[in-house]
Amino acid sequence: MSTGPNRLHLFRPFLLALFLLPPAVQGQDDPAARAGLDLLPWPSRVELRTGRMPIDGGFYAVLIEYTEPRLEQAVKRLEERIAVRTGTILLPDRNRADRVRARLVVRCTGPGELVQNWRENESYRLTVEAERAILRASTPLGVLRGLETFLQLVRPDGEGFGVPAIDIVDIPRFPWRGLLIDACRHWMPPETIKRNLDGMAAVKLNVLHWHLSEDQGFRVESRLYPKLHELGSDGNYYTQEQIREIVDYARDRGIRVIPEFDMPGHTTAWFVGYPELASGPGPYEIGRTWGVMKPHMDAASKTTYTFLRRFIAEMVDLFPDAYWHIGGDEVPGDQWAENPRIQTFMVDQDLADKHALQAYFNQKLAKILARENRSIVGWDEILHPDLPPGIVIQSWRGMEGLVQAAREGRHAILSNGWYLDHIQPAARHYRVDPLSGPAAALNPQEQAFILGGEACMWSEFVSAETIDSRIWPRTGAIAERLWSAASVTDEEDLYRRLDTLSRDLEEVGLTHLTARRFMLRRLAGDLPVEPLEALSDVLEPVKGYQRPATGSYTSLTPLNRLVDATRPESLTARAFSQTVDRFLADPDGAVADRLFVGVCLAEWQELPSALYPHLQERALLAEAEPLVRALAGLAAVGQEALVALETGIPPEGEDLAALQEVVETARRPQAELLIMVAPAVGRLLNASAGRPPRPRGPAGR
Amino acid sequence: MSTGPNRLHLFRPFLLALFLLPPAVQGQDDPAARAGLDLLPWPSRVELRTGRMPIDGGFYAVLIEYTEPRLEQAVKRLEERIAVRTGTILLPDRNRADRVRARLVVRCTGPGELVQNWRENESYRLTVEAERAILRASTPLGVLRGLETFLQLVRPDGEGFGVPAIDIVDIPRFPWRGLLIDACRHWMPPETIKRNLDGMAAVKLNVLHWHLSEDQGFRVESRLYPKLHELGSDGNYYTQEQIREIVDYARDRGIRVIPEFDMPGHTTAWFVGYPELASGPGPYEIGRTWGVMKPHMDAASKTTYTFLRRFIAEMVDLFPDAYWHIGGDEVPGDQWAENPRIQTFMVDQDLADKHALQAYFNQKLAKILARENRSIVGWDEILHPDLPPGIVIQSWRGMEGLVQAAREGRHAILSNGWYLDHIQPAARHYRVDPLSGPAAALNPQEQAFILGGEACMWSEFVSAETIDSRIWPRTGAIAERLWSAASVTDEEDLYRRLDTLSRDLEEVGLTHLTARRFMLRRLAGDLPVEPLEALSDVLEPVKGYQRPATGSYTSLTPLNRLVDATRPESLTARAFSQTVDRFLADPDGAVADRLFVGVCLAEWQELPSALYPHLQERALLAEAEPLVRALAGLAAVGQEALVALETGIPPEGEDLAALQEVVETARRPQAELLIMVAPAVGRLLNASAGRPPRPRGPAGR
Repeated sequence: MSTGPNRLHLFRPFLLALFLLPPAVQGQDDPAARAGLDLLPWPSRVELRTGRMPIDGGFYAVLIEYTEPRLEQAVKRLEERIAVRTGTILLPDRNRADRVRARLVVRCTGPGELVQNWRENESYRLTVEAERAILRASTPLGVLRGLETFLQLVRPDGEGFGVPAIDIVDIPRFPWRGLLIDACRHWMPPETIKRNLDGMAAVKLNVLHWHLSEDQGFRVESRLYPKLHELGSDGNYYTQEQIREIVDYARDRGIRVIPEFDMPGHTTAWFVGYPELASGPGPYEIGRTWGVMKPHMDAASKTTYTFLRRFIAEMVDLFPDAYWHIGGDEVPGDQWAENPRIQTFMVDQDLADKHALQAYFNQKLAKILARENRSIVGWDEILHPDLPPGIVIQSWRGMEGLVQAAREGRHAILSNGWYLDHIQPAARHYRVDPLSGPAAALNPQEQAFILGGEACMWSEFVSAETIDSRIWPRTGAIAERLWSAASVTDEEDLYRRLDTLSRDLEEVGLTHLTARRFMLRRLAGDLPVEPLEALSDVLEPVKGYQRPATGSYTSLTPLNRLVDATRPESLTARAFSQTVDRFLADPDGAVADRLFVGVCLAEWQELPSALYPHLQERALLAEAEPLVRALAGLAAVGQEALVALETGIPPEGEDLAALQEVVETARRPQAELLIMVAPAVGRLLNASAGRPPRPRGPAGR
Repeated sequence: MSTGPNRLHLFRPFLLALFLLPPAVQGQDDPAARAGLDLLPWPSRVELRTGRMPIDGGFYAVLIEYTEPRLEQAVKRLEERIAVRTGTILLPDRNRADRVRARLVVRCTGPGELVQNWRENESYRLTVEAERAILRASTPLGVLRGLETFLQLVRPDGEGFGVPAIDIVDIPRFPWRGLLIDACRHWMPPETIKRNLDGMAAVKLNVLHWHLSEDQGFRVESRLYPKLHELGSDGNYYTQEQIREIVDYARDRGIRVIPEFDMPGHTTAWFVGYPELASGPGPYEIGRTWGVMKPHMDAASKTTYTFLRRFIAEMVDLFPDAYWHIGGDEVPGDQWAENPRIQTFMVDQDLADKHALQAYFNQKLAKILARENRSIVGWDEILHPDLPPGIVIQSWRGMEGLVQAAREGRHAILSNGWYLDHIQPAARHYRVDPLSGPAAALNPQEQAFILGGEACMWSEFVSAETIDSRIWPRTGAIAERLWSAASVTDEEDLYRRLDTLSRDLEEVGLTHLTARRFMLRRLAGDLPVEPLEALSDVLEPVKGYQRPATGSYTSLTPLNRLVDATRPESLTARAFSQTVDRFLADPDGAVADRLFVGVCLAEWQELPSALYPHLQERALLAEAEPLVRALAGLAAVGQEALVALETGIPPEGEDLAALQEVVETARRPQAELLIMVAPAVGRLLNASAGRPPRPRGPAGR
């Protein structure tokens, strides 16, 4: 009999749900959730009114009072995105001069700074009535923020597309809300940066921290020192024209661009072309592995400072922001220690240790940058009494740097807790607050030195193909923490809004949702991809530094495996875990929860028969075999636990131990992936054995 | 109880299949299908050998003998697409000078024509062995074709990614293999054209027929006559720079670009800026509806010819191809008949009727174009004895124009039967052959005048958002008909290969697969999209000219409804129909088929409870209600028929009539959509009533 893989597509996800679950759990009748507005970050004040303003082909916006090209561009983009959002063809004869018929009136009071800075006012007020919406702001930045809010209100409704009548007043909690993108460990082409800038604008982030030089690559064209990019980038660098284009693109969206040229460590790629900058003898090659590497800039040589002065003079033309990130992290100093000339220099200059030498280096850098009217940002290692005021400390190793800087009257931003490459759930990032913990003890004047923070997307384990799925939608949680009031902390509501955000972000070309299927299809070839999706749905990549710990990676290792395709956060596991807990709390009441759990378990038990044939035919899938086996085993344990709960006959002794062993096995990483439903099955098992629930982790699993 | 729409996502398509079906129908054990190579169009000669060549990060290709920038670009693109296909990071240190380690050696004998033409040799030979592949061609065009074939061989396998050992000799059957894109009825931005050029190259099409002027829009910047694009395009036109870029982009991919400036009819948009060109008094406005419009160019005025001479002289600089499409279709001539001056002119010139006047017009045009070294292509209406030789007739109203042209020793191409906007199944287009039917009676010399054909994507009912799904993958069937031997006609194998092609085409950015979910989500808002997908899966838009016949459309009507999201061909309905027939042919043998049919019917019966709540909340979904009802009713009939077949108690009399009425109702278009599983359910019902099967349509449904 001839049957193709297409047949599998005929069976739709919702079918079994409909067979087994009463209507109430089909997610179609939850007015409370639906009444919720899908705004993210949540504004300072929201007053929902009665009625709606329709959005149709007649939509257009007009600018009144102050205008400039940036605002005109923004309004044009808004209109285009509304066309995409609604599938509407905007009327060609709309006449912006006719303010009366404009649906959205944008009243901007005056211009912004020539170069955007963190002191600029970003607040706005948006009032929507049945006939017209008015967006008021005193600066173009406020307008940009308000337009994104307006767009988040445009939704399909019972009459077509519309915006609810509403009054919103909004002002950010922190002025520095950033995202670091590491374009060095893996190359990120200009279009990748651009679509992520669009994503940043959507959640009102305002700083792109662009990590541009590293042991693994020097990513900017230097006309003065061309061997930097020619020999240090494998051909993967931004031309100066591309840099300018991206900086303009960012400014158009109200985003500052701060370049980071990390030094004196993390500099191997510089030395491939210019070994004379290094503290040890060359030749050097582009780094292919990661971690803390030995080569450092020669902090004791005039050559270095002459080079940097001229190099920075060239680069400041490309990067107009008032701040300049000098890196400064992870400087073990071995290469300094091994160089007698540098040691002599330290003695001569009365520099006690490598910290003193780094401070010396930073002071020299600060002078060079001051001449170019640039202030310094640096990782928390650079904190040193000798540094000039006006620097910004980026706290990544903990909150100590942040607190110390604020105490010293220095500006500081937080990144600790916001490392996206650690693959943590959105809720965990959401709980991090720059003014909590040790910072809560600061007085208001000190707290005012804390400008905000930055999410960090280090790229050891992300490529241009996967970076979107690592950044989005989780960064939305961090963006809300930095923009919204500290009291906005409802995690259920966060996840609801992240889900909508995620779909909205597809409109600007982000691939965080679509990349997975593409990647799984690559693994499956012409075999059906659905079982792989079901497997990937309950998995998450390992956390923190566990993946690097496997040790065999280089920057040329393909990131094309199941772990790369799998998203950082399993919403399936989240829902399963919550359902298990509801069921255990009230085993007799929650019939639908019982059915839901049962269906999930049944599905996972069937995975081996769906997947095993693939695993042998597709080399890259072989590593999934223990995951499939463990998940199926786990599901069988869950089924036994359900039976035990229902019959009242608990598993005991060796039986129980065997079942617990299955759960423990499933908790262990396999193929750099975690089965995220294992803890919930463990709780089911413990409950069936009459045991108290095992303590749950901070992520609620 | 709080439950969100996310829960539905937990139920995976394959689950029910796994519950109900034995392994053999799960599509995982069909070696015959998998052994098939996914080459499309199928090459002239394929000899599969034993073994494989691995594809990994060490892959690179070298060019030997003749080379040029176009070839270097093509090899670079190949390498990039292999990186995307495999998720591999190609080694930065690969050295093209080292031919020994190159996986692919491309030996091109010599250059191609400065301007690509249809007489150029496109053949190639590709030989893959374990260590190396060799691609030989005498022209760059042959290389480009062969590289696409090579890429179609790169697949995941048991050892990673590889290409099977193989020897392929390939030469096209027809030299003119085109796709018309109408950028006028709806605007198609440059990036839309580019990604479709990539799709064309993938299936070895070699002519983009670019329909650039119409009643609804004039889409090219004219510096000489700027009111053409300024007043005739709503601001949606290609700048001259964009045109040049696209023509270069096409040439790089071995594709000629033939502009069509349709005249003397279909010209309203010209007259908005230049009413003096028209045969009747102005003013004129851009057409917003479609069909045959009255305004024609004044074929009796010197002004017209002076204008056209100067305009064409400007445009030939942008379009280097030796051919120029003058349109010439649908010229009712009323405006000529109503103009006394034109009537007098016709008497003076001894022009008997509107056909004679159009021929006069075309002769004038031919002279203008001859001076610019351009030959004419025109729709079959232009066929007239007075036209010079060297023109190409594009046969769209039937095959008569094609045959007549060939008999007269004129070149001709076929488009009749290949109108993609008619929303026909791929198999139907596949059965059309330029040398079949009346053309089969031509002698070989006459047949040699038939150069090939063009698929036509008229854009009355497609936007930039939906055009990809209308073109792909169906155009692959037409591309194969034009390239491969006439004997390649296996439709099952075509569909198998179209499925792979479809996934491959995603790699170049085509949105034919991803747009549907995006559009359905737009309709659903934050409600679950899966039930809508299940509904859309069994639907197809109405065929031929049925949609225009609803009459209320303008070019500003949003194309954002269920009919727009729904793909042209329901593979679900195709599989269901085939399964029903297999089951009816052997009711006792095909247990799996019986189960499959039953599961489908059960799914469709559940759709109302999943979808009805949405329909009321989302205005744009309201029109789906009768479809959902009809499909569910149909499914209930199918269930009754199954029961009748199994119990041996056939439905009779009024019962049968009522069931038949349900099927007939479901066959009727609703919301411009057809339920494609209705005929198969009808066959089930007839069989259950002991009646002979109703004759099936040509599409096999």
